[in-house]
Amino acid sequence: MNLSGDRTTLKRHSSLSTLVAHFFGILAVVLMLIWLLHYREGIEYGSDNPLKVLNVHPFLMYCGFLFLVGQAMMTYKTAYASHQVQKMVHGGLHLIGLVLGIVGICAAFRFHDKVNLKDMVSLHSWIGLTTFILLGVQWLFGAFTFLAPQSSSGTRTRMMPWHVLGGRALLYMGIVAALTGLMQRATMLGQSTNAESRLINFLGLAILLFGVSVDFSVALGRYN
Amino acid sequence: MNLSGDRTTLKRHSSLSTLVAHFFGILAVVLMLIWLLHYREGIEYGSDNPLKVLNVHPFLMYCGFLFLVGQAMMTYKTAYASHQVQKMVHGGLHLIGLVLGIVGICAAFRFHDKVNLKDMVSLHSWIGLTTFILLGVQWLFGAFTFLAPQSSSGTRTRMMPWHVLGGRALLYMGIVAALTGLMQRATMLGQSTNAESRLINFLGLAILLFGVSVDFSVALGRYN
Repeated sequence: MNLSGDRTTLKRHSSLSTLVAHFFGILAVVLMLIWLLHYREGIEYGSDNPLKVLNVHPFLMYCGFLFLVGQAMMTYKTAYASHQVQKMVHGGLHLIGLVLGIVGICAAFRFHDKVNLKDMVSLHSWIGLTTFILLGVQWLFGAFTFLAPQSSSGTRTRMMPWHVLGGRALLYMGIVAALTGLMQRATMLGQSTNAESRLINFLGLAILLFGVSVDFSVALGRYN
Repeated sequence: MNLSGDRTTLKRHSSLSTLVAHFFGILAVVLMLIWLLHYREGIEYGSDNPLKVLNVHPFLMYCGFLFLVGQAMMTYKTAYASHQVQKMVHGGLHLIGLVLGIVGICAAFRFHDKVNLKDMVSLHSWIGLTTFILLGVQWLFGAFTFLAPQSSSGTRTRMMPWHVLGGRALLYMGIVAALTGLMQRATMLGQSTNAESRLINFLGLAILLFGVSVDFSVALGRYN
C-alpha cells in the first residue's frame, strides 16, 4: 500500500461525501418548505400575519444562507473551472448567502417588533448573530487576502490554515445556530409525537448531516 | 519564509488553542454548577424531586461526558508521555466519559418516567442519543484498530483519517446536542432577560467555544 494510493482513495471518498452533502442539503430544503408551507402559516416578509414574517427567518437562514455557504465551501470540488474562477464562485456564493442572511435576520427582528418581543434574548440569537458577524469578517479577510491582486503568495500561505479552520468552525457554528433555532420553535409549539414534530426532527438531522458531510467533503480532499 | 517555520508557528498556535480550550472548558463547568446549584434545584440522581434528577443530565453530559471527550482529544498535546501511554490516556478518558454519559442519559429517562413524559421525542434527544451511540462505536473501532496489538500499521494508517475526521464530527455533534438541550430547557423556563437566562446563554457560548478551541488545538497541530 503506498501513499498515493491512499490519497486517491481519500479523494474518491471526498467526492462521495460531496454527493452525500448534496443529498442532505437538498433534503433539508424540501423538508423546510413542507414544514413552513404545509404545517405552518407560509412565508411572506410583508405580511400582516407575524408568523408568516417569522417563517421567512428559518427559510432564508438555511435555504439562503447556510445551504449556499456549504455549497461555497465545496466549490473547489464541484466547479470544474480554473482556480481563479473557482475562487470567484467561492467568494460569490458566500456573498449571496450573506445578503440573503441579512434579510433573514431582519425578518426575525420584524417579527419581534410586530409581537412586542425583545431582540437578542435567546441562546439561539446570541450564537446566530455572533456566527453571522464572524462569517462577514471572515469573508472580508478572505477577499483581501486571496482575491486582492496586491496580497503576496507568502501572506496567502500563512493565512490559509486560519481561513480553512475558521471557515469550518463557522460552518459548525452555523449548524448549531440553526438547530438551536429549530429546537426553540419546536419547544414553543409544544413537544409531541405528531407528524409536524417528527418532520422538524428530521429537518434538524438533515441540516446536521449536511454540515458534517460538507466538512468530510472538504477535509478528505485535503487530508495529509 | 520556509515551511518548517510555518509549522512551528502553527504548533505554537495549537498550544495556545489548547490553553483557550482549557479556559472555556473549565468556565463552562463553573457556569453549569452555578446554574444547577444556585438557580436550579440541585443535582441528585436518587431524589424524589424529579427536577433534581433531571439536573443530573446536563451536569453529567457536559462535565462528565463532553468535557472528558474534549480532554481526550487533546491528550497528544497535553500528556507528556510516551505515545503508547498517550493512546491509553486518550482511550481511557473517552471510556470514563462514555460511562458517565450512560448515567447522564439514564437520569433523563428517569426524569421522564417520574413525570410521565415520553422518551425520545425532541430533536435534542434524537441528536444526543445518535451522537452518543456513534461515539461508542467509534471508541470500539478505535480500540480494535489502534490499541489491539494484532492490527497492522497499514490498517492503522488507512483508518486514521476516518478516526480523526469522525472524532471531530462527533465532537461538534456533541456540542449541537448540548446546545439544543440548553435551548430546550431555557425555552421551557420561559425566555426572559433575567440573570439565569443570561447565565444559560453564557454557558452555551462557553461550551461552543470549548468545542471550537479543541478542534483548533487538534487541527493546527496536524495542518498540512
